[in-house]
Amino acid sequence: MKIEFEPIGIIRSPFADAEGMPIQPIGAVGVKGSIEVFERFCPGLDDLNGFSHIILLYHFHRSHQFNLHVVPFLDSKPRGLFSTRAPNRPNPIGLSVVQLDKIEDNVLYIRNIDILDGTPLLDIKPYVPEFDAQKEVRTGWFEKTGKKASSRKSDDRFK
Amino acid sequence: MKIEFEPIGIIRSPFADAEGMPIQPIGAVGVKGSIEVFERFCPGLDDLNGFSHIILLYHFHRSHQFNLHVVPFLDSKPRGLFSTRAPNRPNPIGLSVVQLDKIEDNVLYIRNIDILDGTPLLDIKPYVPEFDAQKEVRTGWFEKTGKKASSRKSDDRFK
Repeated sequence: MKIEFEPIGIIRSPFADAEGMPIQPIGAVGVKGSIEVFERFCPGLDDLNGFSHIILLYHFHRSHQFNLHVVPFLDSKPRGLFSTRAPNRPNPIGLSVVQLDKIEDNVLYIRNIDILDGTPLLDIKPYVPEFDAQKEVRTGWFEKTGKKASSRKSDDRFK
Repeated sequence: MKIEFEPIGIIRSPFADAEGMPIQPIGAVGVKGSIEVFERFCPGLDDLNGFSHIILLYHFHRSHQFNLHVVPFLDSKPRGLFSTRAPNRPNPIGLSVVQLDKIEDNVLYIRNIDILDGTPLLDIKPYVPEFDAQKEVRTGWFEKTGKKASSRKSDDRFK
């Protein structure tokens, strides 16, 4: 069973290559980018400017294969793929929560962006803490080794 | 440009129909369900049991069309589609953060589930507050009218 999607826009960022890119928005604080939403979808942007943060779902378009075990940027041991945020996945869908600064016509100006320039956008959802923020959370391997996400940069391992 | 995905598993829940289903995990506290991950992807589940919460991306498989303005369950006015979490979207990808109780072989036992029985699963990501939880958030129309998500149920408006 195949499921077909198509881009609703393109993400623009300062990162032409994965190498040296922040690995999560937490490492990209202040980094500015934008989203060009295709004209025919623009009416769907109404009311979005009331939200300070948005969830972007996008296609990891440079991902063409995957392994079910990977060494994450934040660890030195192989981990099960689904316990990581690595881009090479059976369905290479990326998820980032970014800050929305303003919307002008079909362009969203965003901040804290950890996404490659030219990435196809699949969906925008409003970030709502009541739905999306959890309390009393355990974060497995990440607790011991992953706290460095704010300073760690990407390299070419997931090319 | 078309992007093709295929399910990595199937989500099981008590909800055979959208009508009466909680509209977000916050309204589904304690509701138990499970995920059957297809055998060939199971090695990718290693290390996931250290995480208390996981992000599910799935296909809103009953969604076959969309409008760029919708009246959300939590409001009485039409809103821009991308400022809502409505299931009928250009790319009908659902996102829920659920509690992970345990993993046995290829089955994940989960809680706080607001997803239809039989929903095709696209991806599992670990929920990491450092990446996914935001502070100083504004939530637009939701602030005035949306606080009832914990008690509001779905109806058939998005059929």
